[in-house]
Amino acid sequence: MQDKGISQAVVSRLPRYLRYLGELKENGVERVSSQELSTLMNVTASQIRQDLNNFGGFGQQGYGYNVDYLYTEIGKILGLDREYNFIIIGAGNLGRALGNYLNFERRGFIFKGIFDKNPALKGTEVRGVGVRLIDELEDFLKNNEIDIAVLTIPKTGAVGLVDTLVNNGIKAIWNFAHVDLDVPEGIQVENVHLSDSLMKLSYNISRYEHENGKR
Amino acid sequence: MQDKGISQAVVSRLPRYLRYLGELKENGVERVSSQELSTLMNVTASQIRQDLNNFGGFGQQGYGYNVDYLYTEIGKILGLDREYNFIIIGAGNLGRALGNYLNFERRGFIFKGIFDKNPALKGTEVRGVGVRLIDELEDFLKNNEIDIAVLTIPKTGAVGLVDTLVNNGIKAIWNFAHVDLDVPEGIQVENVHLSDSLMKLSYNISRYEHENGKR
Repeated sequence: MQDKGISQAVVSRLPRYLRYLGELKENGVERVSSQELSTLMNVTASQIRQDLNNFGGFGQQGYGYNVDYLYTEIGKILGLDREYNFIIIGAGNLGRALGNYLNFERRGFIFKGIFDKNPALKGTEVRGVGVRLIDELEDFLKNNEIDIAVLTIPKTGAVGLVDTLVNNGIKAIWNFAHVDLDVPEGIQVENVHLSDSLMKLSYNISRYEHENGKR
Repeated sequence: MQDKGISQAVVSRLPRYLRYLGELKENGVERVSSQELSTLMNVTASQIRQDLNNFGGFGQQGYGYNVDYLYTEIGKILGLDREYNFIIIGAGNLGRALGNYLNFERRGFIFKGIFDKNPALKGTEVRGVGVRLIDELEDFLKNNEIDIAVLTIPKTGAVGLVDTLVNNGIKAIWNFAHVDLDVPEGIQVENVHLSDSLMKLSYNISRYEHENGKR
């Protein structure tokens, strides 16, 4: 970790750099100039230089960045140089989809358990992990080191679970419930509010048609 | 539509205002002060006043905002005063989850079709809508007015579909594939890159533990 001085704005752009650098690496590219990255990523070269200057180890003028080095350093900054155990609360379609993402595992996010309140789902499997009843959650957390809880349940259920989660060692909540969670300091929350994202689309469709006289 | 002068930063905060105002409305609250909203939403009252000033119709000093009026106006700005037809490409768990979200329908996003390349899924249903084979997509688009395509397929498939979508009248793509799509001007894209969101969590866990000497 050497993230002092890296702003949240830069941090939120890092996963995208990581993705492009990963693709370059897969294609055997060893060096890339900010100009080339700029074209690939559709971001100005000056933004790229500014962002990547945070990492020190950039190449000489005209020589470009070392792809592998930069990929590794950005991964470290993002905390990807270790593993995180996660559980999913809610074994509906979304919970199952997330449990099945092999990409998460490749990044070091290890799928350890999935819980639901519906007894009919007990014992059904998601990528080899059996669904447990929500009653078993507290014991499970006491007996396993879980870092992240993924909430794919309706908002009332989500709010009611926060105490159980944080009192039993969860460090972070990846929240798909459509509600803002109130957590103690030191517990990280990342929200994925799908409706909010969809409304940005309707805003943009609507604005474009308005500006272009299509309605 | 009266969105001239509303910045993208404000727009991206509007869905959250809408959510809180909707809850107040449901609870029968008619007026709310910026101070009350501030406490509820955990945002400064001055930010709220600045954001909502974009809408003109705010109450007198000390009188508060008219909840219903503000809710309606924000909905209009977000383009929610009309309906949008959407289809889902990819009938895996994520596609099925999105097809089943009744909240989208309530906001005016109407689920019209779901497609997959897997013949085994043909005819299975998601909320009463039968899965069609991807070969049928082009004809379907020609015969139906679809506004939004939701992509819940791997990145190579997603890139290959863009032309078919935009050449057949799609106005917007809600993209869950882990790739940036290259679309013509006027086509709106909203990305939901789930791994990127998860990496923000690992960054924050990692930074917190580092700063607090837990590793």
